[in-house]
Amino acid sequence: MIYDTRLAQKAGINLAALRDKRPLVHNITNFVVMNYTANILLAAGASPVMAHAVEEVEEMVSMAGALVLNIGTPDRVWIKSMIKAGKKANELDIPVIFDPVGSGATTFRTESSRRLIDEISINIIRGNASEVLSLESESSRTKGVDSIHSVDEATESALILSQKLGVTLAITGEVDLVTDGDRTLKVSNGHHLMSRITGTGCAATAIMGAFLAVDNDPVTASSTALAYFGLAGEKAAEKADSPGSFMIASLDALYNINEAQLEKGAKISV
Amino acid sequence: MIYDTRLAQKAGINLAALRDKRPLVHNITNFVVMNYTANILLAAGASPVMAHAVEEVEEMVSMAGALVLNIGTPDRVWIKSMIKAGKKANELDIPVIFDPVGSGATTFRTESSRRLIDEISINIIRGNASEVLSLESESSRTKGVDSIHSVDEATESALILSQKLGVTLAITGEVDLVTDGDRTLKVSNGHHLMSRITGTGCAATAIMGAFLAVDNDPVTASSTALAYFGLAGEKAAEKADSPGSFMIASLDALYNINEAQLEKGAKISV
Amino acid sequence: MIYDTRLAQKAGINLAALRDKRPLVHNITNFVVMNYTANILLAAGASPVMAHAVEEVEEMVSMAGALVLNIGTPDRVWIKSMIKAGKKANELDIPVIFDPVGSGATTFRTESSRRLIDEISINIIRGNASEVLSLESESSRTKGVDSIHSVDEATESALILSQKLGVTLAITGEVDLVTDGDRTLKVSNGHHLMSRITGTGCAATAIMGAFLAVDNDPVTASSTALAYFGLAGEKAAEKADSPGSFMIASLDALYNINEAQLEKGAKISV
Repeated sequence: MIYDTRLAQKAGINLAALRDKRPLVHNITNFVVMNYTANILLAAGASPVMAHAVEEVEEMVSMAGALVLNIGTPDRVWIKSMIKAGKKANELDIPVIFDPVGSGATTFRTESSRRLIDEISINIIRGNASEVLSLESESSRTKGVDSIHSVDEATESALILSQKLGVTLAITGEVDLVTDGDRTLKVSNGHHLMSRITGTGCAATAIMGAFLAVDNDPVTASSTALAYFGLAGEKAAEKADSPGSFMIASLDALYNINEAQLEKGAKISV
Repeated sequence: MIYDTRLAQKAGINLAALRDKRPLVHNITNFVVMNYTANILLAAGASPVMAHAVEEVEEMVSMAGALVLNIGTPDRVWIKSMIKAGKKANELDIPVIFDPVGSGATTFRTESSRRLIDEISINIIRGNASEVLSLESESSRTKGVDSIHSVDEATESALILSQKLGVTLAITGEVDLVTDGDRTLKVSNGHHLMSRITGTGCAATAIMGAFLAVDNDPVTASSTALAYFGLAGEKAAEKADSPGSFMIASLDALYNINEAQLEKGAKISV
Repeated sequence: MIYDTRLAQKAGINLAALRDKRPLVHNITNFVVMNYTANILLAAGASPVMAHAVEEVEEMVSMAGALVLNIGTPDRVWIKSMIKAGKKANELDIPVIFDPVGSGATTFRTESSRRLIDEISINIIRGNASEVLSLESESSRTKGVDSIHSVDEATESALILSQKLGVTLAITGEVDLVTDGDRTLKVSNGHHLMSRITGTGCAATAIMGAFLAVDNDPVTASSTALAYFGLAGEKAAEKADSPGSFMIASLDALYNINEAQLEKGAKISV
């Protein structure tokens, strides 16, 4: 596979910009990954905040460089806050990224996802293949929060959805696919142990949100963020071969990877 | 102490089945341990999901191999969801395991525990000695979530309760006791550092839930799961002598222990 | 800088008392740090419990050696529980420590902080400089939960507030400041990597709560706890140079530091 040099350079530039600007990333996310997400964002160089109360989400998002919405442990009240925050972000041209965790697994998750997509103008949606399929097709099902489909199976749905909604779709799996319906990129960074840590997908979404705060092109922001996140997994795998130590080594790697290393290691292809 | 060879073999068989089937384990659990529980289940080989909204628990549990209920940070709304999920699980013959965290510490926890036991048909209850005593005796008290009683003190209550409720009781401590009122087993695996990590008991319950998804005998499922979980602690203690690194080494060990090692290391006695 | 020998000795005495008494520390805290806080308290030697339901907070706090309130992910229901728990603690002379996370970032956080300060008699408030400034001045603002002010800038506000409210103020930063308006101490322990782990401030507050359970002088409890917590960061930095491994090494260090090491390493100055 031949990797794109310009996109690899862009990855390095985005990482440098993230560390320079330290944007506030406002997360309304799930209970399982809040701590891990905050640590991932801090290690990368962003300034994370978690705030979900309907009383404060508009004010909080107003200060943010990006808004990350994630329905991993959804309930009605939180969805309401997500919509409120998302509308405010739209009003202020603050980019929004959405992670439809478990969409397709229950009617409530699928409907919540569609409602968020309907009511908010979203810049990027990141999910696994089953989640992305569920957004487009009535019949798709997921087992819990793990994908039962391949990225290839979901590619067509991603293209349809991205054009219909004017959103960038990122389907993550062994090779990640990023498309805005016009441009389609693949990211080959990553390591199989990433699937043995809870919240890997959610953390990828958060990092994409951080990159989106410094790169207003959702296609390059998504793909460079996924290359960075995947490269951290590769570096972690050089130090650890089991999930606990791999998780810790991933946090270390996100902190230690520099611009030059990312430029050299990014595996993004057109 | 002489350990039972057949039960040790059964432990290996259960672990192999878990990794083969990768059952979905639906957790309605507490905020403190959600991340750790999900990582423990992933490391062991199960597919965890956390979902608490009253709108989706019935649909989520319908896909699961087991339901894990845990009242570590209870409130009225979550208890309601637990009952709803539990009743649906009963209807579909999906096994239910309950962890009455802090029962005995407050009236609300004791009453919530008893309500769950009343309204749902539960297959296994796992708690420390004080928690188990509180389910049977009006006068028992707990200090927070740590036990102030020994496993021996709670054995009689466990026998009474298991017969009265038709449930398998697992009291964990230095030596764990598992009884269905008829058969009584002891599990001697484990390490003292496990008590210095938050959520060790909750994680044990979740692993028992995963084993229950592949072994429909709650007594063997409980005891083999506790042997596996305790053996991971023993392996972790070979690599780490302090709680932070021990926690990480435990996750690694749960992932690395294979069928043969578990069969050799399980310390279950009749 | 010359460090105070008597306060260093007091640090050692407090740590020994904590491990001897193992006080229950009742936390009503945020979703991001619940797991980390519980592990920090366990590693130090305390017995943590998290309980937020309005039905049980009064009963839970009645057993506690200290109550820790933290508004890192606030909502109306939780604030109500905090007030209920705080009033009960006041009634029973159980010390209360408050962490106004993100006060100044949103009106809801600033108003919630002031409401808690108004309705409860609080022994210690710990925050970063921006948070502490927000409690005193209408015009102060915070970016998310990270400070945009220096400890020096907040010193005057801390002195005014501590006298006005009769509370001990601890402002943490590169050098921590502790004042009750009368006595003012500085703590120089710590390491810059601590700012790259989420919940470092919240964990410091929890450790201060644990020390407050064994030392009823809030000025010495605060400063000795901060010396202990900071020293753990210094010890961790001897073993780890990146945030993931540093976090784990910090947990290990909190567990391993003994009375003599703390007495030798505490950097508290008058």
